[in-house]
Amino acid sequence: MTESEQTLHPTMPAEDLGIGSVQAQRTERFLTRDGRFNTKRIGLGFLSSLSPFHLLLSLSWGKFFALVGSLFVGLNVLFAFFYMVCGTDALQMTTEHPIENTFWRAFFFSIETFSTIGYGHIAPTTLAAHLVSSIEAFTGLLGAALITGVLFARFSRPTTRILWSNNAIFAPYRGGQGLMVRMTNGAHNELIELDVQVVLVQFEGVNGQRTRRFYPLKLERNQVEFFSLAWTIVHPIDEESPLWGHSEAELQARDIELLVVVHGTDDMLAQHIHARASYKTEDFRWNVKFASIYVPNDHGAVAIDVRKLSELEEVR
Amino acid sequence: MTESEQTLHPTMPAEDLGIGSVQAQRTERFLTRDGRFNTKRIGLGFLSSLSPFHLLLSLSWGKFFALVGSLFVGLNVLFAFFYMVCGTDALQMTTEHPIENTFWRAFFFSIETFSTIGYGHIAPTTLAAHLVSSIEAFTGLLGAALITGVLFARFSRPTTRILWSNNAIFAPYRGGQGLMVRMTNGAHNELIELDVQVVLVQFEGVNGQRTRRFYPLKLERNQVEFFSLAWTIVHPIDEESPLWGHSEAELQARDIELLVVVHGTDDMLAQHIHARASYKTEDFRWNVKFASIYVPNDHGAVAIDVRKLSELEEVR
Amino acid sequence: MTESEQTLHPTMPAEDLGIGSVQAQRTERFLTRDGRFNTKRIGLGFLSSLSPFHLLLSLSWGKFFALVGSLFVGLNVLFAFFYMVCGTDALQMTTEHPIENTFWRAFFFSIETFSTIGYGHIAPTTLAAHLVSSIEAFTGLLGAALITGVLFARFSRPTTRILWSNNAIFAPYRGGQGLMVRMTNGAHNELIELDVQVVLVQFEGVNGQRTRRFYPLKLERNQVEFFSLAWTIVHPIDEESPLWGHSEAELQARDIELLVVVHGTDDMLAQHIHARASYKTEDFRWNVKFASIYVPNDHGAVAIDVRKLSELEEVR
Amino acid sequence: MTESEQTLHPTMPAEDLGIGSVQAQRTERFLTRDGRFNTKRIGLGFLSSLSPFHLLLSLSWGKFFALVGSLFVGLNVLFAFFYMVCGTDALQMTTEHPIENTFWRAFFFSIETFSTIGYGHIAPTTLAAHLVSSIEAFTGLLGAALITGVLFARFSRPTTRILWSNNAIFAPYRGGQGLMVRMTNGAHNELIELDVQVVLVQFEGVNGQRTRRFYPLKLERNQVEFFSLAWTIVHPIDEESPLWGHSEAELQARDIELLVVVHGTDDMLAQHIHARASYKTEDFRWNVKFASIYVPNDHGAVAIDVRKLSELEEVR
Repeated sequence: MTESEQTLHPTMPAEDLGIGSVQAQRTERFLTRDGRFNTKRIGLGFLSSLSPFHLLLSLSWGKFFALVGSLFVGLNVLFAFFYMVCGTDALQMTTEHPIENTFWRAFFFSIETFSTIGYGHIAPTTLAAHLVSSIEAFTGLLGAALITGVLFARFSRPTTRILWSNNAIFAPYRGGQGLMVRMTNGAHNELIELDVQVVLVQFEGVNGQRTRRFYPLKLERNQVEFFSLAWTIVHPIDEESPLWGHSEAELQARDIELLVVVHGTDDMLAQHIHARASYKTEDFRWNVKFASIYVPNDHGAVAIDVRKLSELEEVR
Repeated sequence: MTESEQTLHPTMPAEDLGIGSVQAQRTERFLTRDGRFNTKRIGLGFLSSLSPFHLLLSLSWGKFFALVGSLFVGLNVLFAFFYMVCGTDALQMTTEHPIENTFWRAFFFSIETFSTIGYGHIAPTTLAAHLVSSIEAFTGLLGAALITGVLFARFSRPTTRILWSNNAIFAPYRGGQGLMVRMTNGAHNELIELDVQVVLVQFEGVNGQRTRRFYPLKLERNQVEFFSLAWTIVHPIDEESPLWGHSEAELQARDIELLVVVHGTDDMLAQHIHARASYKTEDFRWNVKFASIYVPNDHGAVAIDVRKLSELEEVR
Repeated sequence: MTESEQTLHPTMPAEDLGIGSVQAQRTERFLTRDGRFNTKRIGLGFLSSLSPFHLLLSLSWGKFFALVGSLFVGLNVLFAFFYMVCGTDALQMTTEHPIENTFWRAFFFSIETFSTIGYGHIAPTTLAAHLVSSIEAFTGLLGAALITGVLFARFSRPTTRILWSNNAIFAPYRGGQGLMVRMTNGAHNELIELDVQVVLVQFEGVNGQRTRRFYPLKLERNQVEFFSLAWTIVHPIDEESPLWGHSEAELQARDIELLVVVHGTDDMLAQHIHARASYKTEDFRWNVKFASIYVPNDHGAVAIDVRKLSELEEVR
Repeated sequence: MTESEQTLHPTMPAEDLGIGSVQAQRTERFLTRDGRFNTKRIGLGFLSSLSPFHLLLSLSWGKFFALVGSLFVGLNVLFAFFYMVCGTDALQMTTEHPIENTFWRAFFFSIETFSTIGYGHIAPTTLAAHLVSSIEAFTGLLGAALITGVLFARFSRPTTRILWSNNAIFAPYRGGQGLMVRMTNGAHNELIELDVQVVLVQFEGVNGQRTRRFYPLKLERNQVEFFSLAWTIVHPIDEESPLWGHSEAELQARDIELLVVVHGTDDMLAQHIHARASYKTEDFRWNVKFASIYVPNDHGAVAIDVRKLSELEEVR
């Protein structure tokens, strides 16, 4: 069987989230622990892969300001050289002790032009200098527009700080067992209308090949209207579960990956939000349950302590 | 039974909106009267809980302008001190009667720089002062970009002014009774495509514990295409209703909370909007009905008077 | 039967789009011909009804620029008076022939400050004038931010120019008759994923009262993926139709209103869009069909002529 | 049968995506190869067809900057003439060697005003010049606001670079044949929650007329949660397929068009995105299969090589 045929092979159920079985035959993790894609698309042309807007949005704030500051300085150095090319008389300074250094004079004039301050104590005198300053005026207008747009986009794009329990646990549930993951909202915004999908990925022998198989797991519930406290996602391990009847040792022997995908809405911004998590075999725990996350008394409000999100208790 | 097991207990129906039964065993109200969450998540780290964008959006306009104004003054005072550090000759003033006070001179120069006005009647003379003013120029550009983005976000984020009747009432309905809440739109925008969910929360004895139980209530209708007038949400109290066969006295004895959740769309902005309300036992009324909200004649348009939203009439 | 009971009366089917039967007993049109709501909500408090953002978005471009220009002039006149209050020496002018008129001097200085130009040929000299100009600098920054946000919102908000045929027609359809409305897109953007709802509103005698009744009409199709040409919405008049078996004269005697509601997506902006139309009895035509809207040959593309949207042909 | 009747003819199945059978009787391609609409709506009035925002968004970056630059120069030339009309003394220049050319003096003054730089070394002296510069100040504010809004809209609007295989192929599938198209994401953003529709358009003899007919094709799967690698869309050719039992020669004789429509979500921006493709008979291949797109080993991540998207292998 060739690789391209396998893409279409019936061993790929419709619920594999679009990962596909060929990829599945590799042993790499599909999602990182915190839900980013552990995938690469190589061979994208330079131009087609350029996505400056996505880059400017995904940089950390520190790197972002460093980049913007560098561009600001760099552009002004560039324009300073243009003014120097215009000649030493191109910029006239009217204050008492004018800056004699032609670079600094041109650089500060450039900054006053780019930022549209224009004190006027340095002023262009020649046609050439006027032309350069006109071009810089236009550049400054576009630059301010760009930075405004990008800053707004950074602020307003949907962000989530969904916190996930460190472990996926096999805990007592309705007289049997359940596979559980606990999540809460680590930010102060309110999320609503959440729905969740959980898929189990494990290796099985198929036609003599060690193949990854995908099993969507049935959940006690897969949607909630409010998410202002914590949500314990529960997969009941009953006869229909692919985990039914397997001992802890058997499960640990397999290379399991649990993919959790959450969709919801930011209550204030009415934006659609996503979050993902992945648990590998080493993240699973047996014979434990989640410790209570509720805070007994908190001035009339129902309160949880998010620091207890991953806290486990032994089940006797 | 431990607390973490209860989270998974079958007494929690799939329709409890994600509140969970543990939280449910407390007696605090879950939503405030006007639909805000009466919940807390403590233990969020300082950094992870920082959400300046959400804060800037949720402040009232008065506080917002006070904050922005304070930042404007504070930043300019800060830069004024930087200029003063540059020395008394750093800023030269060319008008006839220059300001002698070095702080005021520096402060006004700072404002003219930050806002990119740059009259030039105060101008930097030293390299140091030029460098500070260059940094301030950059700060001013970023500041203008930030304030533009935040102001736009405040204006454009979805807002609703859904008004709710003060009471939830038990009124005559199709020969029997119905539990009713009336709502209207308190703003001039038009809302469309509304859908509503109503959940009854009440305390019951379960395994000897006083436990909150959640009952989604069937509605006469749960969606409307237009919401330009008023909508009386009706839960018919028939045999299937958890309120069926209970006297007024019995219902008042229970600690009932009625949660109402509305989703819809702003017709002009095409934004998804939400609203919530909560009614506790003390907000319920019996043997009344809503007074007519329609205005008899209003120049050809169909008109309601929103001041009559909560008006009740005795049922004889 | 009282009015508030009628709101809940079974004569209101679940499909009346949320209009309600009480309102329905009036004879006013519910939607205007071009789909705006013919409704009023009076009694809104002044503050709660203030929605400047919606107002700024809904003004025509002419009125919008007139408003913004008036605000610009008004604010500068206001600040000019503040400068005049600071005294005649407050603003010093350095050009050869200074403006002697104190108002004009103050007004132009104000404009140069508000717009952050700051030529400097007029400059403040006193502490008071400097303070006023600092406040104006802050006002100018906020003003620029506001106008930027509002202009962007006006440009980017979802707009549709759906054109509707002038008439709703009873035309031959599959050997019988169909009630048809034709629509096309009057703008150059592409709309996709459209769905449509059609509701017939007519007066009937109910319990001796002339009551409006709502009938959702079954359509030949109620959604299309593409809307780059024209769409003839067809309600087949079969045995299940509320129009079945009624003569033209009978239908004209009733006070019919046909409500058409369309939802879709702007292909470029990925924005959700809406449109509505309403046809009253006088807008109906019998024994006609829509003329072909297709243009025979147009250089390889499939073309329609939107000017023929409402063109009818007699059916022999 | 007249044309307008045909619009409603039963030969148009509900799944034709809204194209309609009249249009369908022409032989023009409905979508271009890369998914743009091959349609025209003529007769739109000049005003109603003006959609400057859509135009500004759809221009290439090069044309966009050329347009904005031209407007900048043009407006400043216009204002320069207004200043020249005010007289030769209207603008006074304070630098040592003032520009004598009245046009250049007015032009540079205009630029310094429009961009709100305002050095002040050129300053208005007359009332008329002050009025013109006030109007230009207002124009500059609006211009900056407009360009900011448009630049932001260009950056933030949903963009996709979905790459499609050059061919639609008939490849081995589960012991039979499948019609397959392969797609991947040509940009660095991540797309999620994709769903796809495929419609076959072909000519058939209906009532003696060569008529286009539309057949929605059943797919092996029509949605995936993740799209970080590649997706081979497969239509299994079984008994229910309109392609069942037809030889390659027969299919090539028909004028087939395969329309593929994809919807999804940008993972970072949470924006809804669309893409379309169209394959005509000449784009079909038989007895081939897609070559593997996976890269054997790429440092722990699952990797594909997008350059192999269209690579085919002969099926022996």
